[in-house]
Amino acid sequence: MSGSNALFIPGPTNVPHRVRQAIDRPMEDQRAPDLPAFTLPLFRDLKTVFKTRSGSIFLFPATGTGGWEAAVTNTLSPGDKVLATRFGQFSHLWIDLCRRHRLDVDAIDVEWGEGVPVAQYADRLAADKEHKIKAVLVTHNETATGVTSDVATVRKALDAAGHPALLFVDGVSSIASIDFRMDEWKVDVAVTGSQKGFMMPAGLAILCVSEKALDYAKDAQCARCYFDFADMAKTNRDGYFPYTPPLSMLRGLRASVDLLLEEGLENVFARHYRLAEGVRRAVSAWGLSLCAKAPEWYSDTVSAIRVPAGINGADIVRLAYQRYGLSLGAGLSVVAGKVFRIGHLGDLNELMLMMALAGAEMTMRDVGMDIVPGSGVAAAEEYYRSTYQAARPTAQAAA
Amino acid sequence: MSGSNALFIPGPTNVPHRVRQAIDRPMEDQRAPDLPAFTLPLFRDLKTVFKTRSGSIFLFPATGTGGWEAAVTNTLSPGDKVLATRFGQFSHLWIDLCRRHRLDVDAIDVEWGEGVPVAQYADRLAADKEHKIKAVLVTHNETATGVTSDVATVRKALDAAGHPALLFVDGVSSIASIDFRMDEWKVDVAVTGSQKGFMMPAGLAILCVSEKALDYAKDAQCARCYFDFADMAKTNRDGYFPYTPPLSMLRGLRASVDLLLEEGLENVFARHYRLAEGVRRAVSAWGLSLCAKAPEWYSDTVSAIRVPAGINGADIVRLAYQRYGLSLGAGLSVVAGKVFRIGHLGDLNELMLMMALAGAEMTMRDVGMDIVPGSGVAAAEEYYRSTYQAARPTAQAAA
Amino acid sequence: MSGSNALFIPGPTNVPHRVRQAIDRPMEDQRAPDLPAFTLPLFRDLKTVFKTRSGSIFLFPATGTGGWEAAVTNTLSPGDKVLATRFGQFSHLWIDLCRRHRLDVDAIDVEWGEGVPVAQYADRLAADKEHKIKAVLVTHNETATGVTSDVATVRKALDAAGHPALLFVDGVSSIASIDFRMDEWKVDVAVTGSQKGFMMPAGLAILCVSEKALDYAKDAQCARCYFDFADMAKTNRDGYFPYTPPLSMLRGLRASVDLLLEEGLENVFARHYRLAEGVRRAVSAWGLSLCAKAPEWYSDTVSAIRVPAGINGADIVRLAYQRYGLSLGAGLSVVAGKVFRIGHLGDLNELMLMMALAGAEMTMRDVGMDIVPGSGVAAAEEYYRSTYQAARPTAQAAA
Amino acid sequence: MSGSNALFIPGPTNVPHRVRQAIDRPMEDQRAPDLPAFTLPLFRDLKTVFKTRSGSIFLFPATGTGGWEAAVTNTLSPGDKVLATRFGQFSHLWIDLCRRHRLDVDAIDVEWGEGVPVAQYADRLAADKEHKIKAVLVTHNETATGVTSDVATVRKALDAAGHPALLFVDGVSSIASIDFRMDEWKVDVAVTGSQKGFMMPAGLAILCVSEKALDYAKDAQCARCYFDFADMAKTNRDGYFPYTPPLSMLRGLRASVDLLLEEGLENVFARHYRLAEGVRRAVSAWGLSLCAKAPEWYSDTVSAIRVPAGINGADIVRLAYQRYGLSLGAGLSVVAGKVFRIGHLGDLNELMLMMALAGAEMTMRDVGMDIVPGSGVAAAEEYYRSTYQAARPTAQAAA
Repeated sequence: MSGSNALFIPGPTNVPHRVRQAIDRPMEDQRAPDLPAFTLPLFRDLKTVFKTRSGSIFLFPATGTGGWEAAVTNTLSPGDKVLATRFGQFSHLWIDLCRRHRLDVDAIDVEWGEGVPVAQYADRLAADKEHKIKAVLVTHNETATGVTSDVATVRKALDAAGHPALLFVDGVSSIASIDFRMDEWKVDVAVTGSQKGFMMPAGLAILCVSEKALDYAKDAQCARCYFDFADMAKTNRDGYFPYTPPLSMLRGLRASVDLLLEEGLENVFARHYRLAEGVRRAVSAWGLSLCAKAPEWYSDTVSAIRVPAGINGADIVRLAYQRYGLSLGAGLSVVAGKVFRIGHLGDLNELMLMMALAGAEMTMRDVGMDIVPGSGVAAAEEYYRSTYQAARPTAQAAA
Repeated sequence: MSGSNALFIPGPTNVPHRVRQAIDRPMEDQRAPDLPAFTLPLFRDLKTVFKTRSGSIFLFPATGTGGWEAAVTNTLSPGDKVLATRFGQFSHLWIDLCRRHRLDVDAIDVEWGEGVPVAQYADRLAADKEHKIKAVLVTHNETATGVTSDVATVRKALDAAGHPALLFVDGVSSIASIDFRMDEWKVDVAVTGSQKGFMMPAGLAILCVSEKALDYAKDAQCARCYFDFADMAKTNRDGYFPYTPPLSMLRGLRASVDLLLEEGLENVFARHYRLAEGVRRAVSAWGLSLCAKAPEWYSDTVSAIRVPAGINGADIVRLAYQRYGLSLGAGLSVVAGKVFRIGHLGDLNELMLMMALAGAEMTMRDVGMDIVPGSGVAAAEEYYRSTYQAARPTAQAAA
Repeated sequence: MSGSNALFIPGPTNVPHRVRQAIDRPMEDQRAPDLPAFTLPLFRDLKTVFKTRSGSIFLFPATGTGGWEAAVTNTLSPGDKVLATRFGQFSHLWIDLCRRHRLDVDAIDVEWGEGVPVAQYADRLAADKEHKIKAVLVTHNETATGVTSDVATVRKALDAAGHPALLFVDGVSSIASIDFRMDEWKVDVAVTGSQKGFMMPAGLAILCVSEKALDYAKDAQCARCYFDFADMAKTNRDGYFPYTPPLSMLRGLRASVDLLLEEGLENVFARHYRLAEGVRRAVSAWGLSLCAKAPEWYSDTVSAIRVPAGINGADIVRLAYQRYGLSLGAGLSVVAGKVFRIGHLGDLNELMLMMALAGAEMTMRDVGMDIVPGSGVAAAEEYYRSTYQAARPTAQAAA
Repeated sequence: MSGSNALFIPGPTNVPHRVRQAIDRPMEDQRAPDLPAFTLPLFRDLKTVFKTRSGSIFLFPATGTGGWEAAVTNTLSPGDKVLATRFGQFSHLWIDLCRRHRLDVDAIDVEWGEGVPVAQYADRLAADKEHKIKAVLVTHNETATGVTSDVATVRKALDAAGHPALLFVDGVSSIASIDFRMDEWKVDVAVTGSQKGFMMPAGLAILCVSEKALDYAKDAQCARCYFDFADMAKTNRDGYFPYTPPLSMLRGLRASVDLLLEEGLENVFARHYRLAEGVRRAVSAWGLSLCAKAPEWYSDTVSAIRVPAGINGADIVRLAYQRYGLSLGAGLSVVAGKVFRIGHLGDLNELMLMMALAGAEMTMRDVGMDIVPGSGVAAAEEYYRSTYQAARPTAQAAA
């Protein structure tokens, strides 16, 4: 195929040129005397991305799943009770992981397309006078359904109940794309990965851990070694690692953090909102609706779009790839076939999204859907035109 | 700016990943014993791209302008008469170059938007009983206007007149994108550059020279040294060069030729036609017309699109770049402000072109043109859908 | 600093150009229909590197430490007895990891510089009539001391005792550099990482697991999720992964395996032996000795060189880096200060090693050691000259 | 072959990582509104490298040979007399180029191994009362023999004679490696290329032209177009180019100039001297001598080393490449077989040079020369140790 493929899955996302070049570097000495001059500022600046002062950053060669495992095994003991919600494939898998580590999960099922049921959380917490619930889990952005939940209100529920449970947030598809506030929301462990908002290849689990959670680690009885916080913290303090660090990825992460901070986090979030809103206008112009059931839950990183009865969303995904080199996300598990997803996070701009929208229009017509050609693109064009901001730096200047 | 810029100028074109990686190679020894094992097959396979058996390939570290200079200084002498047409900026510059080398140019002016006036050429050649015309110049594809001329009929005119003049073709924006037949059309010198159909950075002039033209080189009195065919031919024979070759570019050229031959030249031409036709459908849907005055002249590598009175095409080009990161081509010289150009050559596919079409729609509306949003995109979508071919190899397989 | 740093630590090793380019690829769709056409042959060819037919390959985004964790948690249960040896920093850490997972480790301490005590293993196994020992651990190449142990004789001891214990091998700094035979030695779990013989950045744990070990996984009670064999096996079967795979690293691994198989495994081993032997000749010419106590234990991937009393090996490592841009390995733990290490594995040739030898000579003289300048280099030169083989492919041909 | 080739030809030289990454960039719009923000500072900073305030920089997609052609065709007319010296292959070729452009060259032949005969130049200039000599040519560093001539004394000879001839300097293998002073020496045209001290691939001719020479351009009658100064100057003024610029190379040049200015020109020159002196110590330790007949002519960028009678220098070059992956320079023309050359310019450090010295020792012994193994390396080691400077920035800090 000539030209570039168009990658619009909700991660891994497009890796910017600068990040790719930072990764592609001659191999380095992991114990060089001057390595800390590189690593220590990286830890410091990652804290800015998580909006934390007191939290600690942990970087494991792993994926978000490994990050979940690190979160629970370092802070909890077998039999501990945790409160969670299942409302998509990724919240489901996190619950499953907890159970394999013999945690006692109180899993609330809500319809896929809704967010974390804060009222139910509040009830459970208020009722738990003995504080048997040791941790509360929130999937900030459920990638399978394009639903963003409200972490701040969960914190409020905890505070209202005067409940000491740890607050764990899966921010894999939100952090660095959607506003996240470690300190303000008093999150105890936030987990993300390199391959979404950080615009890198998969392979790095990025965690931010509160002092409270680190305290819990001392007594946590879940077995662990590779993901042990204490081993990491002890060597990280001096800028080194307890085992061979993935230096190429760390160099890429440096470039990623530079890109995020140069653009400004609030600008990054605003860009994601604007790009997402263009996609939502297109969906509306097509006469379709999102899996997310209400605007309060609309995700700025991924949109899961419902297809009409009689149409298999998986066919759209497959044909878009085979015919037009367009990668979309398929529906998973409960919503398999019922939705297709457009990832709109990471290193993207308006015109790039036109590839996804035009390609989706073409493929939806290919599978027999009655979509007006150009209708979604037109809606997005007009929205992007009307929200254009003059301050945008141009390509050469940014080089 | 986040994401990638969208490059739709008619050269330099997008450099494919494989070509970029071939260029980015540790530096090599230009006199290594095994260098000919690389260079000799490269010369051979370039002949395939020019569709020649008897022609010789010359590679100069230069641009197409240097290629023009090589063509005329190696074959002609000051005072020699050449027949040429001016119908765009690049045909104009070639004529200017000839005059600086003191050639006597009979330059026919035709309206910008038309092609080479074959009938007038035929008349001139028939009238030139003394064969004072030593060379006939044809700009195969005039990049400024998006006009492709018919080289085969110029050859017929020469043959009909029994005229021995050399036939020079500027194929800078045609060769490797639009069908070109060195041997069948008995072209004597064909000139192209690395930065268009060959999908590389600028910096390499690529020439194909007939045996007849090489014979002329022996008596040509135009002064030359850097661009001397004889010096090149003598060392190229053994796989080396008379001065330091641009090895990185040669490695890139190898990858470029591999890509062209793997896709198949006829498939490359068909792809360019299809992509161009989608753009033309969009132009038509917008209610606009091309600078090229008739379908016989429509270029498959670049479309120059006329803007209505009162609109400055340069504003469209500037705003598309500043607002949406889209690079279009501006009108040059006689058509400055009257057109904007979309380059659709090189490493492109349908969805990438949607960036150009959507961005053009947005910008045309920004400058006040009454364009229906999505109309051009819709026309292209439907054309591309209807001409989809199942045989397209997918991305992974091609890796 | 001008020029390239000289990296001679025993991992991470120099990443070859081809591997770096394979890694540096536009991001891909992890669920693309054609991904299995890439992943399935990769699993297959990795089996060739491990010399196995019946073993299964597992690829975790992790390091060797994660590989160890995967090995023990998937096959054992808390309280299970394992037999191990501590004779260097990495065998020590593996034992520590087992204990954290509540295994009952019978750890034999031998002097650093010696290999696995096969006779003691044999005694322990023979005495274990009740087969309480569930697994026997062998660090094939102890990176801290430059000692290679004999896995085949451990297998013989197991067989002689008719003992069913699993045989686990840490091949992190041996596999793909020193001969390793999964099937012939009936190894049950072999663990390695990407950053040594595979010549890649750190970040990938590569395991090969016997059918017997996979059977054990069904009953193993150690908690695990991220490193679960069953989850991996289920999705790998179709060419996919249970969580986002590190596609860039997998592409690099493909290039790495291609390089290894193109050179031929036996040639790779022979090259490592020859390069190592040149270093050993230099050490001898310097009048120094290796940490490894006998030739049977000499490692072909890393040499730990003893420094005289009064000299701190750490000074050599530090000054070599600061003055000459040379990265050597420091002594760890028990041998801290007493040795410095030259890694000679991965993408290396004779002349590259001259950087390490000349730089070591310079630095040893800088710290006051009485080394004859050029003596080690001369010994290596003469050895390499005498063992030159004409068949070596040249650079251009290999391109 | 495993590992990297060792490139020690006197150009093209090793391209630093940073320069390679700057070159490897997505293609850009050559007429973008913000391109001048990149190009204008590049022209300005190149003037610093040439040590000029009033000179103008010209960048042609070409090699040094093209630069020579630009120098003479823009300033001279057929029949003009120029004074030159032939004392190596490159001074010979420059004279040949002048003659092809019909200049009347007074070529003084001196023995290969000596520099420009300043006394004879002085005599010729003093005798030329009618100022028929229009230009004086100086090959600053004759790459074929490793001889650096004294440009300052040639300027003194011109001044002493009160002669208005233009002073042309071929600085291809000196500029950016050996001190060059455009303004102080009142050089009129200095020519260099990208592939030596600028550490880039070949493909860019870099010229610096005095105001006086630009004045001459107005009347110069040599035919030219591609290399025309006026066309370039007119568009360069605004940051653009008269034909498609080699943007990738310009981006690389930016990185190259950054590297040079960050290191500091005087530090760059000192580094080249130190590296060269280590090679000269090695040559002396081998009992061999340089082609350069006296220390005043020793080149800091390339050493041509005489081989004893009965030995063919070409065999050394060929075997070093075939057996050890080492690229040395062969003797050219008059000194073919009589010397081999070690290029020691560009992106190099001490340990890298050990590859060249050790490889040369090995190969010289292979062809039967009575060289003490390690002797040259030892001499270089001791020289480099004794001249080590603490201030050297380390690798990580420079990243």
